[in-house]
Amino acid sequence: MSITRPIGFRAASTTAGIKPSGKPDLALIVRDEVAGALAASAAVFTQNAMLGAPVTIGMAQRQMVLAGRQPAHRAILINAGNSNAATGEKGLADAHACMIAVAERLGCGPSEVLPSSTGVIGRLLPVEKIVRAVPALVGALDRGDAADAGAAGAIMTTDLVPKTAAREVEIAGRRVRLGAIAKGSGMIAPRLESAAGPMTPSATMLAFVTSDIAIRAGALQDLLGRIARETFNRISVDNHPSCSDTLVCLTSGAAGSEEGAAAMTPVALRSAEIEAFAGALHGLCEDLSNQIVVDGEGATRTFRIEVRGAPGDEAAEAMAREVVNSPLVKCAIHGRDPNWGRIVTAAGNAGVRFDPAQASLRIGPVEVYRAGVPVMEALKDERLARAMSEQRVELVLSVGAGPGTAWMIGCDLSADYVRINADYTT
Amino acid sequence: MSITRPIGFRAASTTAGIKPSGKPDLALIVRDEVAGALAASAAVFTQNAMLGAPVTIGMAQRQMVLAGRQPAHRAILINAGNSNAATGEKGLADAHACMIAVAERLGCGPSEVLPSSTGVIGRLLPVEKIVRAVPALVGALDRGDAADAGAAGAIMTTDLVPKTAAREVEIAGRRVRLGAIAKGSGMIAPRLESAAGPMTPSATMLAFVTSDIAIRAGALQDLLGRIARETFNRISVDNHPSCSDTLVCLTSGAAGSEEGAAAMTPVALRSAEIEAFAGALHGLCEDLSNQIVVDGEGATRTFRIEVRGAPGDEAAEAMAREVVNSPLVKCAIHGRDPNWGRIVTAAGNAGVRFDPAQASLRIGPVEVYRAGVPVMEALKDERLARAMSEQRVELVLSVGAGPGTAWMIGCDLSADYVRINADYTT
Repeated sequence: MSITRPIGFRAASTTAGIKPSGKPDLALIVRDEVAGALAASAAVFTQNAMLGAPVTIGMAQRQMVLAGRQPAHRAILINAGNSNAATGEKGLADAHACMIAVAERLGCGPSEVLPSSTGVIGRLLPVEKIVRAVPALVGALDRGDAADAGAAGAIMTTDLVPKTAAREVEIAGRRVRLGAIAKGSGMIAPRLESAAGPMTPSATMLAFVTSDIAIRAGALQDLLGRIARETFNRISVDNHPSCSDTLVCLTSGAAGSEEGAAAMTPVALRSAEIEAFAGALHGLCEDLSNQIVVDGEGATRTFRIEVRGAPGDEAAEAMAREVVNSPLVKCAIHGRDPNWGRIVTAAGNAGVRFDPAQASLRIGPVEVYRAGVPVMEALKDERLARAMSEQRVELVLSVGAGPGTAWMIGCDLSADYVRINADYTT
Repeated sequence: MSITRPIGFRAASTTAGIKPSGKPDLALIVRDEVAGALAASAAVFTQNAMLGAPVTIGMAQRQMVLAGRQPAHRAILINAGNSNAATGEKGLADAHACMIAVAERLGCGPSEVLPSSTGVIGRLLPVEKIVRAVPALVGALDRGDAADAGAAGAIMTTDLVPKTAAREVEIAGRRVRLGAIAKGSGMIAPRLESAAGPMTPSATMLAFVTSDIAIRAGALQDLLGRIARETFNRISVDNHPSCSDTLVCLTSGAAGSEEGAAAMTPVALRSAEIEAFAGALHGLCEDLSNQIVVDGEGATRTFRIEVRGAPGDEAAEAMAREVVNSPLVKCAIHGRDPNWGRIVTAAGNAGVRFDPAQASLRIGPVEVYRAGVPVMEALKDERLARAMSEQRVELVLSVGAGPGTAWMIGCDLSADYVRINADYTT
């Protein structure tokens, strides 16, 4: 179980007919009201200037939840096959129509339903197909592996595999559960809000997390932003952040209710309890972001670049981003080619000055560039060939004695990437 | 004739044995002293933090020339197959050894010889091979088509075709000639100095321009920087500026000397004469930059994105760069797929806020997105399919009523790009 593992959540999925493939394309995640339990919701979205209609709506809903002017979200309605982006006022109206259809069946307010869409951009949402599918979707809500797998599958676009994760952590003597489903394969380089550093965008990732912890919305929002920065914002498939990137977390506060325990007290800020939850949430998000980059469009292997000794963390991140997004580096990884000049020159393009005489690069265990000079014997070291052939190639670039460190995780660039993307809408 | 078309220049090329292919890999361009003529030289280089040894040397030489503490350059020695970058102090010493070998044969100072290298990064330059080839190279210096073609061929790396250009312009009753050779196919996204806007780097382009105009070094340097910004800095193949990007211009001041005219008076700043020369130089650089992007690694077609109505030119350029460098946009161009959502969302990733309700996109003559709403009938317009199939696809994105405009020219991303770059050094 994943998304319905925490107490208080059910999920369902169906085929509304949005995807030309005829595969399932509509999923619903619902939080049930549990008496006395404190529910909360939080979300972080793309920083793209072109927001998908669901993101515009989600940002407004979040503001109301954080201000206490609206209850926590009851449901998330997700469709794949159409992103409802670049659709203007009509797109907003279409999303609202879908929210209303769900809210009527659940008996909640429309603004308690978060819409989320992924797929082709610039096509009007087939609202009637979605509205027509809602009653059966609500009727099929369930807990368990089948419901979770169905939802994880319905939100896929070019993903080859569904992405799920779950965690359990003991907090104040109670078993607190976390569950999640996510999607993402192309248009992936999330720069979710709350990320520090220069904005450098990428593709559609959607991640939905549930938990039965009791936590206040403000605290949950802070945690989610902090954790997004260290997980989803550290991956890039194609350096093209989407107009729809979304990470949502719904909590029910119902942990322990299945054993008849009294309502859980909300975890306090700066307590050991909240840190235990943060650790579990971080692990979960890292797991999902890793699944996304491994399933990057056309990817056969991944690589991690860590930059050390930069003037600051932002400078290190800018350098790591240049490396992870260079098509030349990505092709070298694909070809298992230790062409490390591409790595150091990519880092040199971040607008950060550094002294090459203090720069060194390690590929796996082998130093190929040391204090500004190539290590010629490294090219004959058979450990280098092995390191370049790992499923995850490890690169460590030191650029000086500064305190700045950052890492990014990317994937190789293959001819399959081109095949997948040269013929997507038609 | 190209590089030796202007009076006062000769060129030669040879095979020094640097390229594993055994093809010609060493070229020399020499300016001969013409009595009474005012010679000058100017250069702009990459902004990459990792400078190739020849760039470090060239920057120092330029400073001396501009300060009047060193004569204008007499020669440019260019090798392909090894970039002499990421090679530390040894790289500088190696470049100096090559400069000395040329200077001894020409009877000039070593610092009057500009070194330039392109090829694999992080390998020591095979100095002995180069020094051994210099005497024959100097002995072969000549004017004419054969010399020009030889030099243009010897500087190629993954280029499929040599790149040359020439112009003639009448200035103050004299025929002034301009000639050039260039190379570049991969690691192409020049951000040469003097470019305004955020730094966003790309690959090795080398361009060498000669002219027999008489012009002062300071004026030539200003012109070159201004023109680089509007030509070479407007192209991108792979968004990875090289550590070696170089544009050099040598002038002999010898126009008219072949007809026995008196020495040419240097063109004055802000005169019609200098603007006539600037126009010719601009046309020449535009021609070369266009040849480079058309010959981009794996490219089958190119595209031009123009952004209008942005808050300022820098904002417009940042948006155009996101579009031209998005692998998703490049694949859509390759597949002739009018998947325009990728274009508008790429622009949305530039960190520039704009109102989608004021945004419109034209592909060729067809408006596909108007005031924030998709033009659904456009997808059935057969002119759209034709526009997507042009050798150069024309995209115009309007984002508001601001004064900012910029354009970028890029190429499609094909499976051949991956094949070329997944197996380059090995």
